[in-house]
Amino acid sequence: MKKIKVVQWGLGAMGSGMAKLMLEKEGLEIVGAIDTRPDYIGKDLGEVLKLGRNLGVKVQNTPAGLLQKGKVDICMQAINSFTKDCFGDMKIVVESGVNLITIAEEMAMPEAQQPELARQLDELAQKNGVSVLGTGINPGFILDAQVVMLSAACLNVTRIEAARINDLSPFGPTVMKTQGVGATPEEFERGIKSGEIVGHIGFPESIRMIAQALGLKIDRIEETRKPIISNVYRETPHVKVQPGMVAGCEHVGVGYCNGKEVIKLVHPQQIHPHLEGVKTGDYINIFGDPEVHMSNQPEIPGGKGTMAVAVNSIPNVVRATPGLKSMVDLPIPGCLMGNSAYDRR
Amino acid sequence: MKKIKVVQWGLGAMGSGMAKLMLEKEGLEIVGAIDTRPDYIGKDLGEVLKLGRNLGVKVQNTPAGLLQKGKVDICMQAINSFTKDCFGDMKIVVESGVNLITIAEEMAMPEAQQPELARQLDELAQKNGVSVLGTGINPGFILDAQVVMLSAACLNVTRIEAARINDLSPFGPTVMKTQGVGATPEEFERGIKSGEIVGHIGFPESIRMIAQALGLKIDRIEETRKPIISNVYRETPHVKVQPGMVAGCEHVGVGYCNGKEVIKLVHPQQIHPHLEGVKTGDYINIFGDPEVHMSNQPEIPGGKGTMAVAVNSIPNVVRATPGLKSMVDLPIPGCLMGNSAYDRR
Repeated sequence: MKKIKVVQWGLGAMGSGMAKLMLEKEGLEIVGAIDTRPDYIGKDLGEVLKLGRNLGVKVQNTPAGLLQKGKVDICMQAINSFTKDCFGDMKIVVESGVNLITIAEEMAMPEAQQPELARQLDELAQKNGVSVLGTGINPGFILDAQVVMLSAACLNVTRIEAARINDLSPFGPTVMKTQGVGATPEEFERGIKSGEIVGHIGFPESIRMIAQALGLKIDRIEETRKPIISNVYRETPHVKVQPGMVAGCEHVGVGYCNGKEVIKLVHPQQIHPHLEGVKTGDYINIFGDPEVHMSNQPEIPGGKGTMAVAVNSIPNVVRATPGLKSMVDLPIPGCLMGNSAYDRR
Repeated sequence: MKKIKVVQWGLGAMGSGMAKLMLEKEGLEIVGAIDTRPDYIGKDLGEVLKLGRNLGVKVQNTPAGLLQKGKVDICMQAINSFTKDCFGDMKIVVESGVNLITIAEEMAMPEAQQPELARQLDELAQKNGVSVLGTGINPGFILDAQVVMLSAACLNVTRIEAARINDLSPFGPTVMKTQGVGATPEEFERGIKSGEIVGHIGFPESIRMIAQALGLKIDRIEETRKPIISNVYRETPHVKVQPGMVAGCEHVGVGYCNGKEVIKLVHPQQIHPHLEGVKTGDYINIFGDPEVHMSNQPEIPGGKGTMAVAVNSIPNVVRATPGLKSMVDLPIPGCLMGNSAYDRR
């Protein structure tokens, strides 16, 4: 079997995890790595990943000379959440004739918020004979692709309600800030207004993916972000939350048709939800005939889930027809555990 | 939007249900129907389906003159469970240049039990530029495609255990016989030996689909069928089960690698499981990192689920590259509710 040659672009928590995961997969070979952190540049990837061995791959601070058609099959980007901010770097990959997977949340369905950039990317990808996929655990899997998949067992669908209840405790100070953890209720309201507290990135993308795949009409999407006020003391290495302060952000996205809720996605993100008896999990409820009531407890962890979904999608993207793709345009993905996983019929 | 033109072949409980479902889908148009029941032949499909209106489609007893390339996009077959028994009828469809979906259980992965016929079908499909898919709720969805899908959120997978616990009460006398419902324990053992009691059809297919999609090595598949002896009185319109008699068949399929269980699928089928406190449901447990523990209660009903998965797969099969396909070779399916569902990118 010919190995799929990969360049990893971005070596933060997610990108490093993806690189380590790819090293375990027999069908994948990392042939290059890009990151702008001054202390990474010029070092061997094995050293940056703290593997205790060299991989013969030096980290570059730019893609210069690295992305060569035929020598690289796919580039994995883990640099940013927003289509606009990573458009330039995506363009470099695509114009080099290299396939692309990005974990930028908005790229799970860039038509939702950046239709013009999505159109340009699709055109560029087609012109250069490559495919582009944005994915991750959410958006990209639990609250959209998995919802679509389960709906296939229904004769008809009238309404969808899905929730992902997770625990933010393992995350660092940036996530605490963007979710408002540790803020007072007043600071939370101000943070939402100023855009400092963003909640989840991905509801318009997930709602659009489901609606488009099923052909459900959605004429309006509404998002609400409410503070989860703690009744108890909660603490992580990065934040202390006193009773009455904010333990996280309850973010809800609703897709309406003619004033009626059609798709409702709920994603309360907080630290230590169990301290108030909240069980974490992934929940999908499809109303129609028959109804589907799926639960997965505890939730699939966000970090591992995103790394897994991105890396496990590699063969699908390399094999795909050229253009901009979403998860529901590609074959059912699966965990890459051996040779035949790279060779669907 | 150009409608997809469908011929329904087989108008039993499943085929009739599929036909009714297709009539509700705006992107599908039934242009022909085939069935050998003497009282159906020559009648309008609307009369056979008891719709109270004519559809302008006469039921034929053979496909003669019906399957014309360009005039028919796809044929839906619901006639038999076994690849060997429906091979001739599948060949007719494929050689007419018409795509094919069959709900024959073995066809979910015909390589498992009929590798030579699978090879021939693939060759014929490629030669005639059409694609062939076998699907249904199980095999085809819950205990295989859905398992593969969830595994995509895992960094690695070591072992899979999935169960489908359902209620056979709505089914007719044929199902009661093939599952041993109403038999004495001795009759059950004799029925298993003679092949009259078959249990579930699909374990080798599902295990192979998962193993192939993930690249898990399986060197042996073992199936066991045990009687579910009732402790209480159970009854349906078709069968009476006294305490001490058989209420159903607990069928287990295990895929081994080097003597170790890698994939275990459990499917106890019985009437009125709730009478002994058994909750019906679909359960998928994936061991690895992270673990996935999915449940769906109650189970997706077998009849509706099979009709839905088959009909909802139509656009995927019509768009597919030529050849024999399984569910994991095609894009994530979804419930067909409107125009955009027929037009993935």
